[in-house]
Amino acid sequence: LTVISLSDVEAAARRLDGVAHRTPIVTSRTLDRLTGATVAIKPENLQRAGAFKFRGAYATISSLSRAERTRGVAAYSSGNHAQAVALAASLLGSHAVILMPADTPPVKVEATRGYGAEVVFYDRYTEDREALGLALADERGLMLVPPYDDLRVMAGQGTVALELLADVPELDVLVAPVGGGGLIAGCATVVRALRPGARIVGVEPEAGDDTRRSLAAGGRISIEVPRTIADGLQATTPGRLTFEVNATLVDEIVTVTDAQLVDAMRFAFERLKLVLEPSGAASLAAVLSGAFAAPGRRIGVVISGGNVGAARFAELINR
Amino acid sequence: LTVISLSDVEAAARRLDGVAHRTPIVTSRTLDRLTGATVAIKPENLQRAGAFKFRGAYATISSLSRAERTRGVAAYSSGNHAQAVALAASLLGSHAVILMPADTPPVKVEATRGYGAEVVFYDRYTEDREALGLALADERGLMLVPPYDDLRVMAGQGTVALELLADVPELDVLVAPVGGGGLIAGCATVVRALRPGARIVGVEPEAGDDTRRSLAAGGRISIEVPRTIADGLQATTPGRLTFEVNATLVDEIVTVTDAQLVDAMRFAFERLKLVLEPSGAASLAAVLSGAFAAPGRRIGVVISGGNVGAARFAELINR
Repeated sequence: LTVISLSDVEAAARRLDGVAHRTPIVTSRTLDRLTGATVAIKPENLQRAGAFKFRGAYATISSLSRAERTRGVAAYSSGNHAQAVALAASLLGSHAVILMPADTPPVKVEATRGYGAEVVFYDRYTEDREALGLALADERGLMLVPPYDDLRVMAGQGTVALELLADVPELDVLVAPVGGGGLIAGCATVVRALRPGARIVGVEPEAGDDTRRSLAAGGRISIEVPRTIADGLQATTPGRLTFEVNATLVDEIVTVTDAQLVDAMRFAFERLKLVLEPSGAASLAAVLSGAFAAPGRRIGVVISGGNVGAARFAELINR
Repeated sequence: LTVISLSDVEAAARRLDGVAHRTPIVTSRTLDRLTGATVAIKPENLQRAGAFKFRGAYATISSLSRAERTRGVAAYSSGNHAQAVALAASLLGSHAVILMPADTPPVKVEATRGYGAEVVFYDRYTEDREALGLALADERGLMLVPPYDDLRVMAGQGTVALELLADVPELDVLVAPVGGGGLIAGCATVVRALRPGARIVGVEPEAGDDTRRSLAAGGRISIEVPRTIADGLQATTPGRLTFEVNATLVDEIVTVTDAQLVDAMRFAFERLKLVLEPSGAASLAAVLSGAFAAPGRRIGVVISGGNVGAARFAELINR
């Protein structure tokens, strides 16, 4: 397997050193009691811009040449990738143009502009964001920063596992959410290299199990846009590169319902004192609900993000 | 000054080693930009049982003789001290009896019982909890664990500052909430010993400024039970021992309004992804509101706790 290697992730870690937050490990005896395991939470909701996405975006943009950075970067995203690219570009003296659906919540548009990015809207019901992104990049000479299907992005996301294994070297299982598959591909590369016997478990929303089905089918399949509150995990098909990695390295995909995501968000709020967005709660939901269980084992649970407004949080918890 | 010394806190730290969580340092560029300072947050909402109180309770109960521990411990509290004593007693093989007001929210009673404690109710409008606590302790041979006015408790709370200074040795200012004064007394002892030039700033709710007034008066004064959402900071008079320390070591007390506490809770939720209870947000509210400002300085902000239910949080944020 030669898509990315441990040394690519280590190189990304050097780029991120002193720039990305080195997120801590959070533990909870209550969680250990409920799961029968020893759980180490890696809370990337505490990462800059509120999600692991900053790692991949910064690792990618910092690897561009000075001339490329000066011309600027582009990305299409209504979510955490938008803010990650905007922040990373601003820190690196580059200019970011972000394609966002016209119906993106204003708070997300403002957050992205707050990091200095230019926002360009498109109609997500009639226009193809990938084609638009490529056209925009081409027309204005911008480098497109893909949300997951990119070697530098995957390597950046893998630094999550590098830190987790430095803090919990005896890890038995890694549990991580799967949207486009970049986070788990980078992390699985690290875990397989440093802790070959560990189990690698992905988590998808029940309605959005494109990677689970693709693995079962032995090739990438596409699904309808899934109806789930986990807006960061609404991919309809795995990435080409990420699937190549994940088909080889991921041992198992489990799924969680929206109700289980909300239960995990409430548990994180009340017991861990951490704010998780629905997608960010997927791994925790898997171990809390029993969708995945490994009694007696050391489980690393990757929390991917915490970008949810207080009002939206209250609405989800109360419904 | 000989109330407690750095070596008392260091001894408490040895007792807590491997038992209490060593909470991380959380930083936020947004917070630095808003305050003009370099802020290091010490998030004791991530401590066991959700508040710094576990440190003092465990340090105290672990210092009892085997015979004393076997007879059991008592405490009076409707808040974080109750759960801290219950958890610490259970970990140390002791039995805890907690006096709680009859109108304590059931969720707090259940949390305390969940740690194995026996709960005894009293009427807070007609009965004196201190007298009841002493009578109960006397009658059943229990050791009373005071919420703050105790040398071992203060030393335990001081371990917060020991960890903070280990991570941020060049600290210029420590900001901590003041209820009975145990947390800031322990922390001030450490900061004055290890970083003598640093400024020590306490924060009280505007309606509950008994320590500020006592310092101004040059002696302990009493106020009416303050009306504030900061239920952990509703002390009506400073502790005798804590005031002796704080009168010497605390440089300044600032106050914050309930609205500023809610703003800080919302900021922590949306930007830091941390859940703070109203009292726990006091220090953050002080630096965010400008009640305390120290441009260009390194400020340690102690978050004292995060025990607030999701429903109560939503109610506070939406009102």
